[in-house]
Amino acid sequence: MKYGIAMFPSKEIQDEANSYRKRYDPHYALIPPHLTIKAPFHADDNKINELIPEMRKIASNTKPIDYSIKKVSSFAPVTMAIYLKVEPNEQLNQLVDQLYSGKFPSDMKHPFVPHITIAQDLVEQEYSDVYGRLSMVKFDFEDTFDRFQLLYQLENGSWTVHETFKFGGNEA
Amino acid sequence: MKYGIAMFPSKEIQDEANSYRKRYDPHYALIPPHLTIKAPFHADDNKINELIPEMRKIASNTKPIDYSIKKVSSFAPVTMAIYLKVEPNEQLNQLVDQLYSGKFPSDMKHPFVPHITIAQDLVEQEYSDVYGRLSMVKFDFEDTFDRFQLLYQLENGSWTVHETFKFGGNEA
Repeated sequence: MKYGIAMFPSKEIQDEANSYRKRYDPHYALIPPHLTIKAPFHADDNKINELIPEMRKIASNTKPIDYSIKKVSSFAPVTMAIYLKVEPNEQLNQLVDQLYSGKFPSDMKHPFVPHITIAQDLVEQEYSDVYGRLSMVKFDFEDTFDRFQLLYQLENGSWTVHETFKFGGNEA
Repeated sequence: MKYGIAMFPSKEIQDEANSYRKRYDPHYALIPPHLTIKAPFHADDNKINELIPEMRKIASNTKPIDYSIKKVSSFAPVTMAIYLKVEPNEQLNQLVDQLYSGKFPSDMKHPFVPHITIAQDLVEQEYSDVYGRLSMVKFDFEDTFDRFQLLYQLENGSWTVHETFKFGGNEA
């Protein structure tokens, strides 16, 4: 199966992201707004059952991660994707590093840029319009990630959560 | 926030359900195919933080639940919904009972009928056509639930998983 690891921002941020995704992101219906911390990878049942305890270990050794969002940015000209830019965050980087080392598939195709996509696959004119407009908007979100989610992809391209991994010290 | 508790069947069953939902269920894009074990309820942060440890306790006292699906059924004439019928299952009933007692909101509006919706909000003629056709199909799914999921609803009506609760003895 195809798996991915992501974190969902607060409901408030998800609602804000969806207000753009609805119009500008063809993945709108496939997964809630999210920050990907491990890009999609294939694993059979044995492999994923080997990785899940690793995820649990990593989560238990990770403290809740405060982050902020102040503006949008874009991956142009590589892709026409626009995203809520998560400000540079060493804790996030360390978490991601762990998900690409040890027993995990380590093929990171791009350097990690923490982002919550709100627009993609736009044609160039639309991209310019949307980016021009959104790059003027100031966002002021402060939030905390306290868990990550292992998801798998269905045949229609949508993602289902398999398991939640809460960060350490959070067990009630 | 508005919360709900559901279980996702195997990927195979989700893919099968989606092949119908895509055409016949306007909730197709809002949540993956699922079996609801606690209908949507409102809870503030304090309340949900009180309920989460209860969910954890219930999950840890629940053994994986084998279930089977052999055919579709329908809630007509109450609603025009068609669903994959989960065969009667005492373990499932006991799990649901616990999620409506103790500290949980206990207002169960309908008797619990375990089902995975594949069509709803159809007009009558379409309902009759679809149900007539699907009621002839024999399904042969055997699967096991080993966890449930607490979800919350976004403003666009879609659902995000907040936390997974694995059934007892499953921790690796």
